[in-house]
Amino acid sequence: MSDGPLVPGDPLVPGDPVVHGDAPAGLLAAFGAYERALTDDDLAAMDALFAPGPGTLRGDPAGLLVGHGTIHDFRAARRGAPRRVLLDVHVRQVAPDAALVVAVTAPERGGRGLQTQLWRRAGVRWQVEAAHVAPPPAAFDPRVWRVVGDPLVPATGSGALDGAGVAVKDLFAVEGHRVGAGVPAHLEGSRPATRSASAVRRLTDAGATVRGIARTDQLAYSIAGANPHHGTPPNAVVPGGLPGGSTSGSATAVALGEAELGLGTDTAGSIRVPASYQGLWGLRTTHGAVPTDGLVPLAPDFDTVGLLARDPGLLARAAAALLGDAGERYLGDGRVARPGSAPGPTLAVAPALLDALAPAVRAAFDDGTRHLEVVRVELPVADAMLAAFRTHQAWQAWEQHGAWIEAHPGAVVGDVAERFRAASRVSAAEDRAARRALAGLRARLDDALGDALLLLPSAASAAPRAWHDAARLDEARAATLRLTCVAGITGRPAVSAPLLRVATVPDAATDGPLGLCLVGPQGSDVALVEAAATL
Amino acid sequence: MSDGPLVPGDPLVPGDPVVHGDAPAGLLAAFGAYERALTDDDLAAMDALFAPGPGTLRGDPAGLLVGHGTIHDFRAARRGAPRRVLLDVHVRQVAPDAALVVAVTAPERGGRGLQTQLWRRAGVRWQVEAAHVAPPPAAFDPRVWRVVGDPLVPATGSGALDGAGVAVKDLFAVEGHRVGAGVPAHLEGSRPATRSASAVRRLTDAGATVRGIARTDQLAYSIAGANPHHGTPPNAVVPGGLPGGSTSGSATAVALGEAELGLGTDTAGSIRVPASYQGLWGLRTTHGAVPTDGLVPLAPDFDTVGLLARDPGLLARAAAALLGDAGERYLGDGRVARPGSAPGPTLAVAPALLDALAPAVRAAFDDGTRHLEVVRVELPVADAMLAAFRTHQAWQAWEQHGAWIEAHPGAVVGDVAERFRAASRVSAAEDRAARRALAGLRARLDDALGDALLLLPSAASAAPRAWHDAARLDEARAATLRLTCVAGITGRPAVSAPLLRVATVPDAATDGPLGLCLVGPQGSDVALVEAAATL
Repeated sequence: MSDGPLVPGDPLVPGDPVVHGDAPAGLLAAFGAYERALTDDDLAAMDALFAPGPGTLRGDPAGLLVGHGTIHDFRAARRGAPRRVLLDVHVRQVAPDAALVVAVTAPERGGRGLQTQLWRRAGVRWQVEAAHVAPPPAAFDPRVWRVVGDPLVPATGSGALDGAGVAVKDLFAVEGHRVGAGVPAHLEGSRPATRSASAVRRLTDAGATVRGIARTDQLAYSIAGANPHHGTPPNAVVPGGLPGGSTSGSATAVALGEAELGLGTDTAGSIRVPASYQGLWGLRTTHGAVPTDGLVPLAPDFDTVGLLARDPGLLARAAAALLGDAGERYLGDGRVARPGSAPGPTLAVAPALLDALAPAVRAAFDDGTRHLEVVRVELPVADAMLAAFRTHQAWQAWEQHGAWIEAHPGAVVGDVAERFRAASRVSAAEDRAARRALAGLRARLDDALGDALLLLPSAASAAPRAWHDAARLDEARAATLRLTCVAGITGRPAVSAPLLRVATVPDAATDGPLGLCLVGPQGSDVALVEAAATL
Repeated sequence: MSDGPLVPGDPLVPGDPVVHGDAPAGLLAAFGAYERALTDDDLAAMDALFAPGPGTLRGDPAGLLVGHGTIHDFRAARRGAPRRVLLDVHVRQVAPDAALVVAVTAPERGGRGLQTQLWRRAGVRWQVEAAHVAPPPAAFDPRVWRVVGDPLVPATGSGALDGAGVAVKDLFAVEGHRVGAGVPAHLEGSRPATRSASAVRRLTDAGATVRGIARTDQLAYSIAGANPHHGTPPNAVVPGGLPGGSTSGSATAVALGEAELGLGTDTAGSIRVPASYQGLWGLRTTHGAVPTDGLVPLAPDFDTVGLLARDPGLLARAAAALLGDAGERYLGDGRVARPGSAPGPTLAVAPALLDALAPAVRAAFDDGTRHLEVVRVELPVADAMLAAFRTHQAWQAWEQHGAWIEAHPGAVVGDVAERFRAASRVSAAEDRAARRALAGLRARLDDALGDALLLLPSAASAAPRAWHDAARLDEARAATLRLTCVAGITGRPAVSAPLLRVATVPDAATDGPLGLCLVGPQGSDVALVEAAATL
């Protein structure tokens, strides 16, 4: 092997790398040109130096991009790569017209990166056919976490949750820490808590540790999982997908294996939607069953505490710890049977809800539930449920946060700010009418559902992509809330089980995991997780 | 392209991956065999499936390994790879006997990994010639940090350090957090601090934020940077190298770009050595110039506060903030001139110290200082300095921690435990003799050095490798302490500047960055950093 400098004397090649191995003619010039294009963020030059066609590959920690066009779109959106120099360049000629180039890089911000490229020559042009780029990892991902530790808060007891680390949504008090609620101005105005919220303590008393405090949508008033202040947590399993919210950071942390449990809240789907989008098990507990001290509220008539996990067994154990006495209510009286016992629980579906689904989502649901014996139930009209739910949720959200928002102009931004503006315009008369409607709807729902477990998709789509336009995101949101508000209105617990998958289909629905949701009678929480785990 | 299952029906291939692209005959069988060998941790099978010879490559976030033997050693030491399944496998045939295989993996602990392999056929055997493996990043690296946040503690003022994040060594009180001092039992017995140490507050008052609390060697009684409790921080620039300690986590964090500043301590080299091993700028401040409230002591007669940075300008600004009035003492009186002013400071070297260096280190020092005008000074015999320094350091360390160590058997382990055991055996008479010797040595050193800036290497070697045996590490430690104790005995400030490099040479010295150390008169701290920056 000949080791020597790259393009000696060329002042445009960043760094002064040493080349190990023999390079075919023209390769190092093309390699140097690509490095300069990267430094200059010269999109046209980078495009020309990557092989055209649908088979070109570019991977990094965010995922693998396939196809020249997709790679172009990614480069155009990122606006410049982190600056770096090259240290060592290893060349392995594979064929007269092909070589692998492995480079150790030194990013300006520190550390060492690694890059592997397969170069092919087409005529006289060398082009990259596949690239794998690994920058040095950051200290942690601030889109996912605000604070994280080993552990952040130790266990306060020992039991069924020994060894589990919890990603606590930044709405709960954690001893010694402030609460951010997804809004920097809220964090600034917060004082370190002297005592953790009861929900946190119930988990640490059972042996769990607090791994860290995870990001949330602003004041939890969204199910998308986007946050313009500190970035949107990545979807761990759908490249480019929204994480789902508002328990967004906890969901991503659990899906990435950075925590075993997520502690969050679910008002209108904030546990079920991120569970659905990221292939996790999620539990929205019975309304009122878990104390909400030390928790920033959104709409107390609907707010519940919830959990996320990769493993249903751990979810059931955590649910039992979180619910305490309230968790065992249904296990002894036969209203919801333990899995395997006879008779099993009655499973129900609501045709009107399913008929409104996009075809690909409907197909995923039908495929995943075909083997189950179900009864059909007739529920109130979804649009009427959604309207009443949204109106009263908005009224309560403004009651909780309106004064603070008016005192802190600009603190809440984007679509959540718009939602609060709309909430501020709900009149007392409108809210009274909504409450009356909700009481009636709840009675009708309880009557229709009884002790049955209602099956429905956890969301009306797989994870929308971050680049979808606002109208498409709004549509996805409304369609999902039509499903999630059944549990909201009734105060019933709901489990999202990662058992479905939306395939890519001609109607352009997004593909990805989809949760199968089970809504059970109040107090059936633990039994519901166990029942879902048997499906 | 044909997309289909990999080795259909083969129950031994983990996962049920989809193959994209056409694979040459035999490649997928070899690919599957490698995946099974990985799952089984079958070293012989993995060795056989990687191409023999010195040119085979395997890279991951810890660095690039070159050569079949090095890769074998790495595999033998790691004892099993994290379990995973394959999701998507992209094959690109490059030549009749060569193909690139890019695979998206799903590690059992969550997230998505990416792996790129270049396969070559030699006869009938397909073998990997180059591999690039990227597992999903962890929440954070607990070898480097104990707690980290965005920020962990906000700035308390604004000024010269605006925007800088600090990695605080886990010896300093940080408001709301406990102090671990590198020993889990110490952490457990610690209460959250109600007030940050003065050193921390001086930095946050100048606009810095606390990024996190970084790992340290046990009770700071080491310069290696190894910690058996939570793992040794990686050396950011030397694959497999020790990070240097005891300000180990802060150094790695700064070198990786995970923090801009490291706040640490230096008793016997705990700033200078990690700066040297990882190519950073480091300052050990004048003894007594920075308040030590809220700091776990080691040997108060030698303990100083210190700083690490990638950039000398930031180091100078941080030093000025940390030292307050004490930092300006030498700037106005001409005893240490500002860089560029005339006459410049006198630079001195001590031939006896340099003559004892390993040839490769001596060569690095000579190469890096050849252009400088220096005077020669005669210092006391290094072994005498080291003996007196070590004896009194040990006496004070046992005074500080002996009772706690005896009350917590097993809490401190490994070489640091041995060091404390040795310290417990230092007699009062031995310590009295050492103190007398130190007083004499200090007078002789001050006399010889005056206002000159002494130049010497910051350490007697580049970073030792983690696999070096204990005897070799001990030897490196003693050789380095002979150099670092000059500042320790005199209480003088010292800067380590990343200006030297030890090359690989026949005497088997380790290669890597090496610091050029400048020891200046007491109080010259800021001027010393500025002087070093002009070299």
